[in-house]
Amino acid sequence: MQKNTKHRVTMKAVAKQAGVSQTTVSYVINGVTSANIPEETRQRVRDAIKALGYHPNAAARKMRTNRSHLIGFITDEIATTPFAGQIFKGAQAAAWASGKLILLSNTDNNTDLEQAAVEAMLEHQVEGIIYAAMYHRQVEPPKALYEARAVLLNCFCADRSLPSVVSDEVGGGRMATEVLLRKGHRRIAFANHTASDPGVIGRLEGYKQALAAYGVPFDEALVCVDIGQADGGYRCAMRLFQQPDRPTALFCYNDRMAMGAYDALRKLKLSIPDDVAVVGFDNQEIIAAHLHPSLTTLELPHYALGKWAVEYLLAHIGEEYPLAPVQHMIGCPLVERESA
Amino acid sequence: MQKNTKHRVTMKAVAKQAGVSQTTVSYVINGVTSANIPEETRQRVRDAIKALGYHPNAAARKMRTNRSHLIGFITDEIATTPFAGQIFKGAQAAAWASGKLILLSNTDNNTDLEQAAVEAMLEHQVEGIIYAAMYHRQVEPPKALYEARAVLLNCFCADRSLPSVVSDEVGGGRMATEVLLRKGHRRIAFANHTASDPGVIGRLEGYKQALAAYGVPFDEALVCVDIGQADGGYRCAMRLFQQPDRPTALFCYNDRMAMGAYDALRKLKLSIPDDVAVVGFDNQEIIAAHLHPSLTTLELPHYALGKWAVEYLLAHIGEEYPLAPVQHMIGCPLVERESA
Repeated sequence: MQKNTKHRVTMKAVAKQAGVSQTTVSYVINGVTSANIPEETRQRVRDAIKALGYHPNAAARKMRTNRSHLIGFITDEIATTPFAGQIFKGAQAAAWASGKLILLSNTDNNTDLEQAAVEAMLEHQVEGIIYAAMYHRQVEPPKALYEARAVLLNCFCADRSLPSVVSDEVGGGRMATEVLLRKGHRRIAFANHTASDPGVIGRLEGYKQALAAYGVPFDEALVCVDIGQADGGYRCAMRLFQQPDRPTALFCYNDRMAMGAYDALRKLKLSIPDDVAVVGFDNQEIIAAHLHPSLTTLELPHYALGKWAVEYLLAHIGEEYPLAPVQHMIGCPLVERESA
Repeated sequence: MQKNTKHRVTMKAVAKQAGVSQTTVSYVINGVTSANIPEETRQRVRDAIKALGYHPNAAARKMRTNRSHLIGFITDEIATTPFAGQIFKGAQAAAWASGKLILLSNTDNNTDLEQAAVEAMLEHQVEGIIYAAMYHRQVEPPKALYEARAVLLNCFCADRSLPSVVSDEVGGGRMATEVLLRKGHRRIAFANHTASDPGVIGRLEGYKQALAAYGVPFDEALVCVDIGQADGGYRCAMRLFQQPDRPTALFCYNDRMAMGAYDALRKLKLSIPDDVAVVGFDNQEIIAAHLHPSLTTLELPHYALGKWAVEYLLAHIGEEYPLAPVQHMIGCPLVERESA
């Protein structure tokens, strides 16, 4: 354990240890192949680097190569959803595969902080910026984002002027409903969230598409709208399943509403899945896997979204900005458990 | 929207626009007060910077000032707990207050990745590294961490050779039990997690201390140990509350166990809090606030942990490393709801 703050190992020391010039060390570190340095010499330099614990100075290297090897990553509300971790992991996997590190800033949707974060990242000469939303929505990206190579993650802007990757809400809603249709259900209720975000609109659209594909007429009376939390799901289920001619299945906008619906169905003495089959959305592990019975649900592809965003950025790192505004969509996989 | 990849605004352009020398621009940007530049000239430079959208090159600035303004932040399992967001937010609040950005790496507890992450961060000349665990535990920090100013967050090392900040588990367990004692309960069961981490040991110790303070003898039969998830809580509650001489209160190691205990108590037709008062731990919002009745619990001080770690680091940034190994502890606040 070295008590040392001033004597960081220098390139000079590496050169001395390897018996070569500093220029040779620099060539080896920066992978300059045109320099024609024999492999045996390269190995000697690498050994010296290892033996001395030398860390090439990234700032100095950046000055020479004009590559910072940094990617900026801006999130809106990292602490309010459990999804940030998977989004970040996907992004990091792609970044690390190319030797990049991630500068992370959380802005809590504060416009001034967003602008400041982008500017601070540009000052650090990031090679690109990922702008990530924790739930799928339309955003108004900070203006400074147009001065960088930027990709929108789990969000999109109104004029589609920046590349974007989001989950396929319509496909997810369709699959959730099809799971129930395939099991023979025809009176399928839908507890939706009171909002007009892409998840709400898309999942309802998917629900309708699936019903149509099976020749089941859409019945407005089977759709209940309330807040997208346990309480909202509870109230929706109480309203939908007290009717004598009640539905036999329930698709919930998210797992939290399903959690509340479970309480209501239990209160109504209806068993899951025998009396009522239930399908959720989000695969919020802590809820979905641990309800009794465990919840069949659709998974949001957060890891894949994070990975795609960074891969797209890195694939276009040499190009002008803003990058070509591809609008990419990734499917939501079904997670079958016991509730349907 | 500027289509421009090559013509980043230069310091030269700023100097021209402001009608001053590049040296003057540099002095203004770097806050060199000894240069005696009139305020009127400084303002002209700031106006030109704003008008042109100039971003000073952080790498170049770093070369001059030897300060990267970067802090490394290494996490072990960002995606498996919902706590990472608050820890990060606390860390970021402290970092931003000092104009620092955070380089984040998640390592999934992989030793090789940890070592690589620390080395990559050192290469970027971070001013210090926070090594964060997502649950309170003892860790074996990567060796490279001793080559930096490092602080352990939500974890500690066996020989206490690095500074560390963790939550006060004993105090939390004591407070959880006291809530029940104050309401008159004397037969208080404890559903603990099967592990030997500081949370398990500390909360049990706090439970015993609170009982002792109220003159209630500790009864081994009232402690049930099972996995720290809903299933474990369910099984513990079934075991503890089927006895005729059953306890009147239950303290659960975490909110997930409490969630399972709720199911068991409902099955046993015992109402919460009238027949059995329940207190959880963690304040996992998505569970605790949405159970029926809502759960009284202890909050883990994640934001405060993150903030303390970075503030400690920044307060000692000029010092030799490893930093003085202060072992700091932060209390777990009580969140009173309806279950006790």
